[in-house]
Amino acid sequence: MEQKPYVIGLDLGGTNSVFGIVDRRGTIVASTSVKTQEQNDVEVYVDKCCSALKEIIEVVGGIDKIQAMGIGAPNANYYTGIVDNPANLPWKGEIPLAKMFSERLGIPVAITNDANAAAIGEMAYGAAKGMKNFIMITLGTGVGSGIVVNGQLVYGSDGFAGELGHVIVDRSESARPCGCGRKGCLETYCSATGVARTAKAMVRTSEIPTLLRDIPIEEITSKDVAIAASKGDKVAKEIFEYTGKILGQACADFAAFCSPEAIIFFGGLTKAGNLIMDPIRKAYDENILYLYRGKAKMLVSELDDAGAAVLGASALGWEL
Amino acid sequence: MEQKPYVIGLDLGGTNSVFGIVDRRGTIVASTSVKTQEQNDVEVYVDKCCSALKEIIEVVGGIDKIQAMGIGAPNANYYTGIVDNPANLPWKGEIPLAKMFSERLGIPVAITNDANAAAIGEMAYGAAKGMKNFIMITLGTGVGSGIVVNGQLVYGSDGFAGELGHVIVDRSESARPCGCGRKGCLETYCSATGVARTAKAMVRTSEIPTLLRDIPIEEITSKDVAIAASKGDKVAKEIFEYTGKILGQACADFAAFCSPEAIIFFGGLTKAGNLIMDPIRKAYDENILYLYRGKAKMLVSELDDAGAAVLGASALGWEL
Repeated sequence: MEQKPYVIGLDLGGTNSVFGIVDRRGTIVASTSVKTQEQNDVEVYVDKCCSALKEIIEVVGGIDKIQAMGIGAPNANYYTGIVDNPANLPWKGEIPLAKMFSERLGIPVAITNDANAAAIGEMAYGAAKGMKNFIMITLGTGVGSGIVVNGQLVYGSDGFAGELGHVIVDRSESARPCGCGRKGCLETYCSATGVARTAKAMVRTSEIPTLLRDIPIEEITSKDVAIAASKGDKVAKEIFEYTGKILGQACADFAAFCSPEAIIFFGGLTKAGNLIMDPIRKAYDENILYLYRGKAKMLVSELDDAGAAVLGASALGWEL
Repeated sequence: MEQKPYVIGLDLGGTNSVFGIVDRRGTIVASTSVKTQEQNDVEVYVDKCCSALKEIIEVVGGIDKIQAMGIGAPNANYYTGIVDNPANLPWKGEIPLAKMFSERLGIPVAITNDANAAAIGEMAYGAAKGMKNFIMITLGTGVGSGIVVNGQLVYGSDGFAGELGHVIVDRSESARPCGCGRKGCLETYCSATGVARTAKAMVRTSEIPTLLRDIPIEEITSKDVAIAASKGDKVAKEIFEYTGKILGQACADFAAFCSPEAIIFFGGLTKAGNLIMDPIRKAYDENILYLYRGKAKMLVSELDDAGAAVLGASALGWEL
């Protein structure tokens, strides 16, 4: 069967739904968006999306030029095509979103969560091109992950595999509470939120002068820490060292699972560049099992920030 | 191509090399063995093996009845077919064992490590029949693992994936030193050796009466602990509870990687039955992320102990 030149990607966020039509090289040739929050009825939402899509589909020559569509969404299950009770979307229950779009557009549609979409995007257009075994770590509000083994995304027995942000890195009494209801999860330390938590704790307990003291303590964000660190602030740099150390240690454990060719980091925290990447690499090298020493590269995503989520989602379309 | 009725399995141990000819149901229809240690020249070793094999191959109707051969061996790499400087085998350097057997026998030969072979054996003939996503944990002198994702064994970028015995479960100063040169690896707690270490430490520090005190402290083995526990010995039961708790916690983290349908345990420690399995299940349930709750079964291998290693190796042959 002849392959068609484009796929559609949908980055379904709580506020906006962003669509892109993407070619094989990963160029977004047309895009549009719909407000997610305004549509309390998911049927109306999908209809609105399809109307908006129709316009940009015409621009590239019609639906016959579109191979498939991929959706990146919270709580999305690749196996079932369902979005299951997403906390920050306006719809309740099990939404068969893949099927709803597929029926209206007449093309195959697949759906997965954001981190998995990012991994597939990286494989199709980014830092993981040509790789068959790698781990994608997304450092956002939480820590997400997408794992690729033998060139295939790991969905597991139920479609929910790859929640490395919820590997427990601290089993002590003083471990940080996590949104999942447990304590000591990786994401309580290494997400943007985790960095802010570390910053607040350090500013409270340390007496070393720091630019972070100029900010009301409860308002400190990971971005503030990055700005301070880039100015040479000692406490801010220590916060990244602490964060990177925990992440590098955890990644050394992850390597024992799938011996990846690379671990690729994506998201706001990677903007701090070597301030975060150097401590990750150092802790990884110090903690890696001899068998894997010097093998996995620690990389930063090569996907353009603004379009990354749409690109990731679109790449799922090429797999259909 | 017509499939042939048998495969050969070789369990290559430091003392003995055990061969079995195995049918599709996992019955060992003929077997033989060669002393590994007596053969310092690997060429002579392979020749001897092939002579021994020839006899049992005739019994099943000749080499035309044999589909392929699988080898389970320490430090074996599936991708390269090489055994690389195995510590307890009499040969040095990189031994292209798969090729050596394949050239002499005229059939395809694949090789992998014991834990991976066990996982494939479980999938072909045992508790993982029909499963596409599971984790095999072998509890022997060390802790080994074989991971199956999408129906395929996870070999990783280099053929060495799946060393879950070397995930670090204790990062404190007092963590146990591991043979790998690091500290706090899972296998320092949850292998047979780890159980003996725990027993020695508990007998030394506790004053509770225990049958284990009848044994010279340095000679206590995991088997002694199992015997004492089966007699209701409180300290021995506590040792299994401690071991199972660490293993169950670690398995809950492993689930976040691949959301397995089951985690299957194999090896001497599983002889302790519910004394070890109940604490594993309890800690797993207490530590599992809500997404995966109640999904993965904690199982004990269904492969017959005596033949398990040969069966595991042979199952690799069916994949060729």
